Amino acid sequence: MQANEERKIKLVISYDGTDFRGWQIQKNDRTVQGEIERALAELHKRKITSYCAGRTDSGVHAAGQVAHFSSDIATIPDARFAPALNSLLPRDVRVLSSVSVSEAFHARYSAVKRTYRYYFYHSSVAPPYIDRYCHCLGTHVNVRKLNDLARVLIGTHDFETFAAVGEDERTTVRSIYDASFFTQGAFLVFQISGNGFLRRMVRSVVGTLLELAFRDRKPEDMNVIIATKNRELAGTTAPSKGLFLYHVDYTSTPGKNHE
Amino acid sequence: MQANEERKIKLVISYDGTDFRGWQIQKNDRTVQGEIERALAELHKRKITSYCAGRTDSGVHAAGQVAHFSSDIATIPDARFAPALNSLLPRDVRVLSSVSVSEAFHARYSAVKRTYRYYFYHSSVAPPYIDRYCHCLGTHVNVRKLNDLARVLIGTHDFETFAAVGEDERTTVRSIYDASFFTQGAFLVFQISGNGFLRRMVRSVVGTLLELAFRDRKPEDMNVIIATKNRELAGTTAPSKGLFLYHVDYTSTPGKNHE
Repeated sequence: MQANEERKIKLVISYDGTDFRGWQIQKNDRTVQGEIERALAELHKRKITSYCAGRTDSGVHAAGQVAHFSSDIATIPDARFAPALNSLLPRDVRVLSSVSVSEAFHARYSAVKRTYRYYFYHSSVAPPYIDRYCHCLGTHVNVRKLNDLARVLIGTHDFETFAAVGEDERTTVRSIYDASFFTQGAFLVFQISGNGFLRRMVRSVVGTLLELAFRDRKPEDMNVIIATKNRELAGTTAPSKGLFLYHVDYTSTPGKNHE
Repeated sequence: MQANEERKIKLVISYDGTDFRGWQIQKNDRTVQGEIERALAELHKRKITSYCAGRTDSGVHAAGQVAHFSSDIATIPDARFAPALNSLLPRDVRVLSSVSVSEAFHARYSAVKRTYRYYFYHSSVAPPYIDRYCHCLGTHVNVRKLNDLARVLIGTHDFETFAAVGEDERTTVRSIYDASFFTQGAFLVFQISGNGFLRRMVRSVVGTLLELAFRDRKPEDMNVIIATKNRELAGTTAPSKGLFLYHVDYTSTPGKNHE
């Protein structure tokens, strides 16, 4: 008779952040981690801890959040954890896939690239089935100008300007690999990839880029805003409902087939 | 002093049908017309009747429903009815535009073409922000085969086969101008246009096409199903959550700028 060995399971999770107080578990608020761990506990008949790639804020959505946990249930094949958890989860969280990964895998520490998307809708009023997932732009913005400003973000910089008050990370230096705006149907999409992001950084960056574009400011002004590390120079933080944790990349093969 | 002349106002309306018992006003159920007329009454301080292009069923969404009403309020410019109504409407109904039209215009009787879209998602599980607006296809379907079957619908036919039980229209003959499947990102979309549709006809047609495609049946079989007018030959009615009243066309110029 075989002992129940532990398997590390990697989940790709999608959620509608509207009715969640973010990812991280909290005593009195509804959170995604809270729902996931409630479902895991129901399945395992004991507390199971989960770890995610990016702890999204209140109201932020996810297309491809990644999380892992360890399971000693031998009877569930790797891929069946997804439907098993979905049957126990509320409709606003869906596990898109489940695969087993090596013991070395960690959803947060093994991630090499995180990609966020911010969706704008090209009108002052959006259809209701779109309105929860975008920010309406009443006025025209120049996409070329936005891209000129966004390009300044690419590279390794100290992003303290865009950090939330009370940021407790050891360092506010992050590497940005890509930051660009593009049109997708009725949407203007801002996509940003990097090794990591500070709390509320993407929404602060989005608000700043919009403000600079509206005021017809130059890329050099964006440079100055980053260099001064003065939070007061950042624009108004963009609403969370337009933001999606879009994708998380891992180098090692265990996490390769995460979609 | 001028008398308050009546203006006929045409609205383009979008809604998330999930929490509505369809368009048509009902005593004890939440309906789109009920919400629209509640907002109109609040604005006019009296009962105002609205007329729509297509009375969508329970759970069916709209991207471009059209409705009209007559107003004697002289102080609101045509285009301002949209934001005025939106400020009084719940978040799952949005008026996308308001224009004044000629006295001869009627949202229902002046419509020359109605277009519906049915959205399928190419996977057994959809992200939560998509799941309310599509039907998940767990298995692969052959789009070419679906199009061969759908083409049979085009033309003027008696569609009694696809009529809901208790259909009370004078005639079940309708003209279909276009019926085709196409891929749009992660979606398989079925678009159908015609001069009009019977109650639940689109969902019944969708269910029948899918069933025939899965069973590898031929376009001639679809022909027979239409010709026999036997409701029992129709496939299972597809779920309402994938269906959108997409667009309504009018010939006369008053309704031309309805988007």
